[in-house]
Amino acid sequence: MILVINGPNLNLLGQRQPDIYGTRSLDAIAREVQAAMPDSHFEWFQSNHEGALIDYIHEALNYQLPPRGIIINAGGLSHTSVALRDAIAAVAHIIPVIEVHISNIYAREDFRHTSLLSPVCRGTITGLGTDCYRLAALHLATLR
Amino acid sequence: MILVINGPNLNLLGQRQPDIYGTRSLDAIAREVQAAMPDSHFEWFQSNHEGALIDYIHEALNYQLPPRGIIINAGGLSHTSVALRDAIAAVAHIIPVIEVHISNIYAREDFRHTSLLSPVCRGTITGLGTDCYRLAALHLATLR
Amino acid sequence: MILVINGPNLNLLGQRQPDIYGTRSLDAIAREVQAAMPDSHFEWFQSNHEGALIDYIHEALNYQLPPRGIIINAGGLSHTSVALRDAIAAVAHIIPVIEVHISNIYAREDFRHTSLLSPVCRGTITGLGTDCYRLAALHLATLR
Amino acid sequence: MILVINGPNLNLLGQRQPDIYGTRSLDAIAREVQAAMPDSHFEWFQSNHEGALIDYIHEALNYQLPPRGIIINAGGLSHTSVALRDAIAAVAHIIPVIEVHISNIYAREDFRHTSLLSPVCRGTITGLGTDCYRLAALHLATLR
Amino acid sequence: MILVINGPNLNLLGQRQPDIYGTRSLDAIAREVQAAMPDSHFEWFQSNHEGALIDYIHEALNYQLPPRGIIINAGGLSHTSVALRDAIAAVAHIIPVIEVHISNIYAREDFRHTSLLSPVCRGTITGLGTDCYRLAALHLATLR
Amino acid sequence: MILVINGPNLNLLGQRQPDIYGTRSLDAIAREVQAAMPDSHFEWFQSNHEGALIDYIHEALNYQLPPRGIIINAGGLSHTSVALRDAIAAVAHIIPVIEVHISNIYAREDFRHTSLLSPVCRGTITGLGTDCYRLAALHLATLR
Amino acid sequence: MILVINGPNLNLLGQRQPDIYGTRSLDAIAREVQAAMPDSHFEWFQSNHEGALIDYIHEALNYQLPPRGIIINAGGLSHTSVALRDAIAAVAHIIPVIEVHISNIYAREDFRHTSLLSPVCRGTITGLGTDCYRLAALHLATLR
Amino acid sequence: MILVINGPNLNLLGQRQPDIYGTRSLDAIAREVQAAMPDSHFEWFQSNHEGALIDYIHEALNYQLPPRGIIINAGGLSHTSVALRDAIAAVAHIIPVIEVHISNIYAREDFRHTSLLSPVCRGTITGLGTDCYRLAALHLATLR
Amino acid sequence: MILVINGPNLNLLGQRQPDIYGTRSLDAIAREVQAAMPDSHFEWFQSNHEGALIDYIHEALNYQLPPRGIIINAGGLSHTSVALRDAIAAVAHIIPVIEVHISNIYAREDFRHTSLLSPVCRGTITGLGTDCYRLAALHLATLR
Amino acid sequence: MILVINGPNLNLLGQRQPDIYGTRSLDAIAREVQAAMPDSHFEWFQSNHEGALIDYIHEALNYQLPPRGIIINAGGLSHTSVALRDAIAAVAHIIPVIEVHISNIYAREDFRHTSLLSPVCRGTITGLGTDCYRLAALHLATLR
Amino acid sequence: MILVINGPNLNLLGQRQPDIYGTRSLDAIAREVQAAMPDSHFEWFQSNHEGALIDYIHEALNYQLPPRGIIINAGGLSHTSVALRDAIAAVAHIIPVIEVHISNIYAREDFRHTSLLSPVCRGTITGLGTDCYRLAALHLATLR
Amino acid sequence: MILVINGPNLNLLGQRQPDIYGTRSLDAIAREVQAAMPDSHFEWFQSNHEGALIDYIHEALNYQLPPRGIIINAGGLSHTSVALRDAIAAVAHIIPVIEVHISNIYAREDFRHTSLLSPVCRGTITGLGTDCYRLAALHLATLR
Repeated sequence: MILVINGPNLNLLGQRQPDIYGTRSLDAIAREVQAAMPDSHFEWFQSNHEGALIDYIHEALNYQLPPRGIIINAGGLSHTSVALRDAIAAVAHIIPVIEVHISNIYAREDFRHTSLLSPVCRGTITGLGTDCYRLAALHLATLR
Repeated sequence: MILVINGPNLNLLGQRQPDIYGTRSLDAIAREVQAAMPDSHFEWFQSNHEGALIDYIHEALNYQLPPRGIIINAGGLSHTSVALRDAIAAVAHIIPVIEVHISNIYAREDFRHTSLLSPVCRGTITGLGTDCYRLAALHLATLR
Repeated sequence: MILVINGPNLNLLGQRQPDIYGTRSLDAIAREVQAAMPDSHFEWFQSNHEGALIDYIHEALNYQLPPRGIIINAGGLSHTSVALRDAIAAVAHIIPVIEVHISNIYAREDFRHTSLLSPVCRGTITGLGTDCYRLAALHLATLR
Repeated sequence: MILVINGPNLNLLGQRQPDIYGTRSLDAIAREVQAAMPDSHFEWFQSNHEGALIDYIHEALNYQLPPRGIIINAGGLSHTSVALRDAIAAVAHIIPVIEVHISNIYAREDFRHTSLLSPVCRGTITGLGTDCYRLAALHLATLR
Repeated sequence: MILVINGPNLNLLGQRQPDIYGTRSLDAIAREVQAAMPDSHFEWFQSNHEGALIDYIHEALNYQLPPRGIIINAGGLSHTSVALRDAIAAVAHIIPVIEVHISNIYAREDFRHTSLLSPVCRGTITGLGTDCYRLAALHLATLR
Repeated sequence: MILVINGPNLNLLGQRQPDIYGTRSLDAIAREVQAAMPDSHFEWFQSNHEGALIDYIHEALNYQLPPRGIIINAGGLSHTSVALRDAIAAVAHIIPVIEVHISNIYAREDFRHTSLLSPVCRGTITGLGTDCYRLAALHLATLR
Repeated sequence: MILVINGPNLNLLGQRQPDIYGTRSLDAIAREVQAAMPDSHFEWFQSNHEGALIDYIHEALNYQLPPRGIIINAGGLSHTSVALRDAIAAVAHIIPVIEVHISNIYAREDFRHTSLLSPVCRGTITGLGTDCYRLAALHLATLR
Repeated sequence: MILVINGPNLNLLGQRQPDIYGTRSLDAIAREVQAAMPDSHFEWFQSNHEGALIDYIHEALNYQLPPRGIIINAGGLSHTSVALRDAIAAVAHIIPVIEVHISNIYAREDFRHTSLLSPVCRGTITGLGTDCYRLAALHLATLR
Repeated sequence: MILVINGPNLNLLGQRQPDIYGTRSLDAIAREVQAAMPDSHFEWFQSNHEGALIDYIHEALNYQLPPRGIIINAGGLSHTSVALRDAIAAVAHIIPVIEVHISNIYAREDFRHTSLLSPVCRGTITGLGTDCYRLAALHLATLR
Repeated sequence: MILVINGPNLNLLGQRQPDIYGTRSLDAIAREVQAAMPDSHFEWFQSNHEGALIDYIHEALNYQLPPRGIIINAGGLSHTSVALRDAIAAVAHIIPVIEVHISNIYAREDFRHTSLLSPVCRGTITGLGTDCYRLAALHLATLR
Repeated sequence: MILVINGPNLNLLGQRQPDIYGTRSLDAIAREVQAAMPDSHFEWFQSNHEGALIDYIHEALNYQLPPRGIIINAGGLSHTSVALRDAIAAVAHIIPVIEVHISNIYAREDFRHTSLLSPVCRGTITGLGTDCYRLAALHLATLR
Repeated sequence: MILVINGPNLNLLGQRQPDIYGTRSLDAIAREVQAAMPDSHFEWFQSNHEGALIDYIHEALNYQLPPRGIIINAGGLSHTSVALRDAIAAVAHIIPVIEVHISNIYAREDFRHTSLLSPVCRGTITGLGTDCYRLAALHLATLR
């Protein structure tokens, strides 16, 4: 199982600012990723609440079988949340975590150039639009 | 309809540190603003949860008739929340958003001198006490 | 009496860069503010000279009856003039001073994000176009 | 009564990264602190939600008898949450608040070297492992 | 055709510091990527000379048929070369360019946290080992 | 007509610190520039008053025929005056403005390395002594 | 002759903020300094205009006999005016210039801790109240 | 044995600035700590000389039996002395060292917010008045 | 003889990003400069290799007759190459060197605002399009 | 009695670097100051030891009659010693302290531009050579 | 065998700026070093091309017998080249590398104060003129 | 005679942290240096007191015959002591001073990357272990 975690404002995907975030909704992306890897099981989660995202990551520790990986797009929290970083660091030794960003955060405002999550994730895929999710999933499939 | 959104600790208005925040409660302020603009409909919302504030802003997109404007006092989140900024940016093209601060944030601690929200809001009213809410509402009334 | 003080380049209002500063001249704004508060007396002053602005503020101390308030849009001097700040500080205990900016200075160049005047003014109204002057005047009217 | 408030990821204490955070769970620590001060009543609270922590602190203002003190380990929020700082500042004049950190935050990443909470707390105990809670409680016992 | 450009020290891949850069040589990676996309034509280039890398990128403008994409791992030049950035910017409107880094540059020395190339590339894949090349190629295949 | 505007202390040219500013007075320079372009009409203006410089620039907007260009050496105000920058920005769409500096400001004190005027001027000529004025004039002659 | 030059807001001395600037007016100070050095001739000048201060300093170059020294309290311009600094630098080789500040600028706001004038003045006397003027004059008397 | 080391100006404790440092002398504090832990032997040392503090710490390496711990309040040297930090680092593997500060250094001047000693000490107790010494001693008692 | 040295990516002039760099190729510019100064001999050199540029500058020291001047547009290397700066510094006492930039680098990205070359060049001409080369040549003609 | 305290390297006065520090020894300066104020008693102290300077300042608290003032030239310690600053702060409410610097520290290396002592002293006299001591003494004579 | 690698502009040694770099050519230095260690074999290499320097360092990995050591004076590249640093880091575990600088880089421009190479070299010898090469060689001789 | 001065904590050499500072005591190093230069006379001095180090340097000025050179390892004071720097500067014109560091300070904590002493010393030898002393002595032997 692969967990795909989406942070604040990503519920609006496809609905708002398509020039930055593309025209596909989270649901449409989920279907695309599933189509690309039909044999894998994905669980998608979205919340605008930092605490809910942390709770959800913690729960991954309680699964009978640890998830094969976590794909996380933490939105604006990427740049500000030490608490989310600590939650990822707490599971990263057991579950590989990949950070994705739909837009090229390095070509936007200065405060988006640094992600507090990157140093504790396995890797980061940025700017490749909604294809970032599929690529992250394909990489997780190569592990173990 | 005008949404008036209040962030963390503003539920304590009138109760705590009246030298900084004045002696009026949120309810009293709401009554004053209503009195100044008797023909307008205001909806007041307060939460100490960043996520709840974002959810509330998102909901404004689903109204039959978009609200005439949003007045937001995000309290301490003004200086730290990229996620809240992104939520405002997602609605700002449709709904004018005005940021207010009861105290003069430029005369306080350094970290209060910068608001992440200001650049994506239409404008900001700061330091004029609880009258900030009334002035913001009066301005919204001049739009369209 | 309320003094409305305008700094460098604001004599060009309505004439230049209307996308940033709007299409109304200072005279037109003055008429609008007067119309909104027909019973108040306003005195409008504009200069491109820092020294003249300081002289004008000092004179307010010599009035028989201290002015009810000062509304100041110091233009580019807002970000650079300690001398103007000191002049405001010298009268602020007697006369409430409100800083206004027509454009949203927080959405423009970095050096416009900080106003040296803000910490010594009562409050600041920014980005609400030429309506900033009217709102500032309405607030002054609430002060005893 | 003494409130002991724990922020994000501290529910994992004893379970994760014992080299940094020690091997004791929050429950075990609670029992140790109780044993050290058998006559005091402690109420322990943990949440990964910033808003819930603020709500909890606010409630302390509504107790019949104000709590004797608050011990807070805000985890990653210590370094980022102005909102939490404001909540503490709102109660600190009535209830003494002590900040604790299990690990030596000054020997870790740069962004952990500054706590936004420290300046509004009475004091801080850092790096002495889970014993920090007991020491903070012992200090509160000396106050009135 | 997809150009895969490798900068300084990447000729040593597989030979040096395998804990950071993995155990595979550039040749082995090239074979893996080819195997994953047997129908695509890849041209691999490596140089320790900034000028040679720029020359090579310029040549892509002279191809009968513009390459389908460029994958670039500029090594240490990523963090220092404005000239290389300008070369990429000169072709990026015609040829999509993806930046890859084998190691997680955000978990290493400070000066590696910023890539001058990222803002002018389409996107960046970092820290996923030598699989970064394959993922970048898979993404290019989705572009028209 | 070409306006040549000189800021603070440039009235002392030729008189003071000839090692930095050369031995020619403003009058001598004016004659040289006139000699190099006998068919052009130049109007020279010097003031130590920021406000006077701004007033003078504004007047250029009222000419029957807009001047062919402005050459400005703002002296020390180059590094500090947002107001002057704004005045230039207000005319730059109609009248090309070229900034000149007699000395090589990049080889002097740190605070002289940045000119607030440069980004809103068409271009800058620095360090070529009093010949800067002639070169700027020659360039203006090439513009329609 | 010794010139004593006073910048913006110093005309208010004795009238405003006596806790910072003392209770003596410029006139009173002038009388005290004269009394301390009855045989010297002092010329006092005050202006709120940067340009007027520069003009006045330049004029010192045209005196039959160069003044024995200049004592300057540039007020808020001390921290912002490169133009004033350049004016002082232009005369400092001929006329010794001493900078004075009535208040201890190092114990006030951060932006007052640096004077652009200090490096080009002979020396600085700060924080000793209005006695700074007398001490500066006494020092000038020791110079040939 | 527990060594309690006090740096510059702490000999004045109880005598100066009681609002910041409390009213108890070092002797009174020593008696209180002894009373709280009657079975332990404490040796108190104070010096205003950095070198003497370093010498004293070095001597701890020559004791027959290494001291059970060191409690150090280095006063102003905490923020500036790399040499003292190195001395502590040289003994910290053998003797646990706890840093204490009577006042809340995070609520004072900026330069007091960083202690060079903290990263090489086991932990830090700050702002709890003279009780910091007792708490540090109580913690040392829990260590083997 | 005048050497005109062009750095990385300037071989693409006229071909790429004409909005920034104009529509003229290096060859066309060379012809224009030659036409403006028919009696002077120019040697044009372009390379994308920092080392080749340095070698070329060194060779100027070996000419029978030292070149009359060097005009250098070092492109992206201007902002990053200490080695190129040192090469210029090594010849600047014998051969005057003028730095040119076609675009207004002060109106572009932050990292283009500083040129490491400027302090060791005689002067700089920036933002006047391809006319910068001609103006630099005209200036060199005025020197001995 | 007035204490004149001199820090590190000032014992070399008159002997070393006379271009910076003048040609007079401390003894000669002492005699000059005494001559200027024959009725006052001065006690001169010099040490290269920070601790000795602090000890000496502390002793001033034990005098039967508090000294009339302290004149301190702390040399290089001015820029680095928080401990010395704290010692001055401890006596400054009882004894006025004036900081002097023989050379103009603002015209020297960057690290000499900030004195940690200035904010806690009454005032500072800088750059007026060895006359600084006399002027400081003359000012002390005006107090009480 | 000991490799002695010299970067940009060092081919000019002895020819240019002898006040900074001495009067000896690279050849003369090579002879001196050989004379000091007649039994050692030295190979000297100089290039103005970063890439060539990296290539040369890589080749050292292919020698039958690894060189006894590398002495590198990378000139201006020391302060800017991450690529060169990475090349050194790739060989430093096998071959000891010593960095040398003829001039005292800490007494020159700010950007020369930091060498990117120093942290990955064994050590650095700076400012001792051309003798730096001999001392580095003597040290290498002491290593096994 | 050559003076070898060692600062704080270097008396522990060989005893503490041998992974950083090597296993040789100061005495052993002294014997090695003597053995390498049997005809030179060395005087070794160590103190943990900044003041004592300064006193010792000053005394060198009083020797009948000025010492041939000074080798100084100032330990932690290298990074913080302006007073020590000034002492070195006072003798450096007469006696050449070489700074040494046993460990590679550029590969350690940030605050060790800058030595205040380096700019006033003749040169610096860093990271070559205890051999640094011998190399410095060998260099001094080459001077007059």
